[in-house]
Amino acid sequence: MNDLAASVLAGDRRAVARLLTLVENAPVEARRLLATLYPHTGHAHVIGVTGAPGTGKSTLVNQMTLELRRRGRTVGIIAVDPTSPFSGGAILGDRIRMQDVAGDPGVFIRSMATRGSLGGLARATADAIRVLDAFGRDIILVETVGVGQAEVEIARAAHTTVVLQIPTLGDDIQILKAGILEIADVLVINKADLPGTERVRAALSMMLDLGARSNDWRPPIIETIAVQGLGIAAVIDAVEQHLAYLKDGGRLAQRERQRVHDEIVSLLRDNLTARTLAALPEGALDSLVQRVCRRQIDPYAAVQEIIGK
Amino acid sequence: MNDLAASVLAGDRRAVARLLTLVENAPVEARRLLATLYPHTGHAHVIGVTGAPGTGKSTLVNQMTLELRRRGRTVGIIAVDPTSPFSGGAILGDRIRMQDVAGDPGVFIRSMATRGSLGGLARATADAIRVLDAFGRDIILVETVGVGQAEVEIARAAHTTVVLQIPTLGDDIQILKAGILEIADVLVINKADLPGTERVRAALSMMLDLGARSNDWRPPIIETIAVQGLGIAAVIDAVEQHLAYLKDGGRLAQRERQRVHDEIVSLLRDNLTARTLAALPEGALDSLVQRVCRRQIDPYAAVQEIIGK
Repeated sequence: MNDLAASVLAGDRRAVARLLTLVENAPVEARRLLATLYPHTGHAHVIGVTGAPGTGKSTLVNQMTLELRRRGRTVGIIAVDPTSPFSGGAILGDRIRMQDVAGDPGVFIRSMATRGSLGGLARATADAIRVLDAFGRDIILVETVGVGQAEVEIARAAHTTVVLQIPTLGDDIQILKAGILEIADVLVINKADLPGTERVRAALSMMLDLGARSNDWRPPIIETIAVQGLGIAAVIDAVEQHLAYLKDGGRLAQRERQRVHDEIVSLLRDNLTARTLAALPEGALDSLVQRVCRRQIDPYAAVQEIIGK
Repeated sequence: MNDLAASVLAGDRRAVARLLTLVENAPVEARRLLATLYPHTGHAHVIGVTGAPGTGKSTLVNQMTLELRRRGRTVGIIAVDPTSPFSGGAILGDRIRMQDVAGDPGVFIRSMATRGSLGGLARATADAIRVLDAFGRDIILVETVGVGQAEVEIARAAHTTVVLQIPTLGDDIQILKAGILEIADVLVINKADLPGTERVRAALSMMLDLGARSNDWRPPIIETIAVQGLGIAAVIDAVEQHLAYLKDGGRLAQRERQRVHDEIVSLLRDNLTARTLAALPEGALDSLVQRVCRRQIDPYAAVQEIIGK
């Protein structure tokens, strides 16, 4: 089994694909291999790309990849779809994306869909990043579909998060709801040939003025027309400037400590719960569930009983 | 303090508002009051309404409320915004929504935004549902913004989930990514006067044909123009038919057991983690974080060390 880890470190693409399958389907088995790889990680720049459906994320990721390849970087792409338990959509997305970069050994693409919980997906994504990092990719692009907490969870694993918007039609309230701005390091207005571009730029700029950011990096707002490849170099420049900003004054190390802290707590949470439930007498949980359903006790009281045992 | 619970049971709106504030801001204090209310819950029909930003959820919820009032039901509305840590957007949304129903004692509206984790929001929402249930509302509408796992988490608390779509412009792939269909009991195509309505209906219908559903309820697809109040009665009819379906053959009880089981496990998870971290020696977690950052051990090994202690 350790051969697989050694093959990943030696640059074997098939070994990477097999290990990623293990990460998704057999996380416990994958764990020992990930531990072997762990000392070889920490070199890649992890870039999250997120935005609502229809904003053109896949196209942007494709174009960013082409630009990164022009600049001589190797690229790993993880396309995460937290809105779908079907991997079908993601696979279809892959095929389309791959047309431009297929056959380039400097690009490695992998889709991941939700199999279980969001937590499970976030964990599998973090582990997949580690595999591609150990594989030696310079840049890892993590593309997530949807708007909401899923992105926020997954964005924790990224050093730099690119958030896409498109010019909207009416409805000023919706843009105020984009709390996802909080996680943006670079803002991209894609489809910038559509009417409304200036209005979205003004709204984003106002929100940046209003929002209390925890640091002094102001996300640049960049216009792109990704289908035509326009504005892409500016996106890559901004992403590189953000990495330089993070490296300056130990911010990257600070961010890494926070990420590791959160990851340990999250793993601890799952581990403790699994152990405690496994240690309960046969039928004890079912019996508590029944008493709660009959409204004899409330759910908090049920938890107290489990912990008392 | 128990006076507050008694006042909620007696139908005092201000007590409800105060208790909901406790639920959001002081969940531990709220717990004892919730336990007092728990035996009085389980009567309301909880209906989730969800869809991507811009689909017209707030307008639909407003119109559904007016129709439910015409049918003599009392209504509680919980507007949940998992995409925003600001409650501002939600409050603004409230004001607009309230224009039609303000002053009607048969309607109670409350907004909730993300304060901490998605898990925290899902929990606060479940508790808020309980408060409005004990308050005696016949119907509780839970409106969630966004697309993705957040809705899936929050939908667990609903008996019936209404998913909104609008006619889309191009991009057939995006609609295939709508894994949120899995949680839909009633599908609504809002803004059904826009071009593309037939195409969306055909796509949704095809996805229902393809998807393996765990039960024999086929979600009806209903067209509405919510801003004009068109199609709303059909939505309420569908929602009522779904409730009748659930009550038939013990399905509702089965669903309730599953929900209670999930809630107990989720509460257990948080409780165990908080206790374990509190019991660690001062600085032990920081020291593990540092060793992981230096890549001396990997995160899984760090968790093993904590559990060993």
